Amino acid sequence: MIIVTGSATARPGHFDEMLAASLEHVHRSRLEPGCVSHAVYRDVEHPLRVVFFEQWADRDALQAHFEVAESLAFVEALGPLTSEPPTMEIHTVADRGSDASPSAG
Amino acid sequence: MIIVTGSATARPGHFDEMLAASLEHVHRSRLEPGCVSHAVYRDVEHPLRVVFFEQWADRDALQAHFEVAESLAFVEALGPLTSEPPTMEIHTVADRGSDASPSAG
Repeated sequence: MIIVTGSATARPGHFDEMLAASLEHVHRSRLEPGCVSHAVYRDVEHPLRVVFFEQWADRDALQAHFEVAESLAFVEALGPLTSEPPTMEIHTVADRGSDASPSAG
Repeated sequence: MIIVTGSATARPGHFDEMLAASLEHVHRSRLEPGCVSHAVYRDVEHPLRVVFFEQWADRDALQAHFEVAESLAFVEALGPLTSEPPTMEIHTVADRGSDASPSAG
């Protein structure tokens, strides 16, 4: 599995528009083949910032996602709404296990 | 590296208290050995829910984190504030690379 994390920071006054575009992207992406999860969250420590957390079945699914026209359009739409370039990191998961430890982390 | 994700959903009327406890846990955890990152975010689609995203250098660092008294106290504190048991998933990362793809995901 692949975990993708990303972030985007809105220019002041453009947060709502950035969030609406992000949610549209999230909802569309969830329907793509190989999308395990896709969500956007608000950084409680940086109110103009959102982070993305995505899980994809494999590299091929992620690559196909990158090539979807609406994905590219979303990135272009972010440009004028954000104060800095969005970030993205791709993590390949070796194994995964839920844990019964008493800590939530 | 290890990626830990988690979530907690507040009982109505207890969100602010849950968030304050979560932020205290995040700030304390960031100072622990082997903590690469630790953050809490608000789920924009479920306003009573927060998610945690953490990166730890290795399993030993994560295990030590689980055994910190304050980590256990945090989990206990969540109990009466949340409407369902918190979740946690542990992902071992095989490799990691930032990506210059034009998509933010």
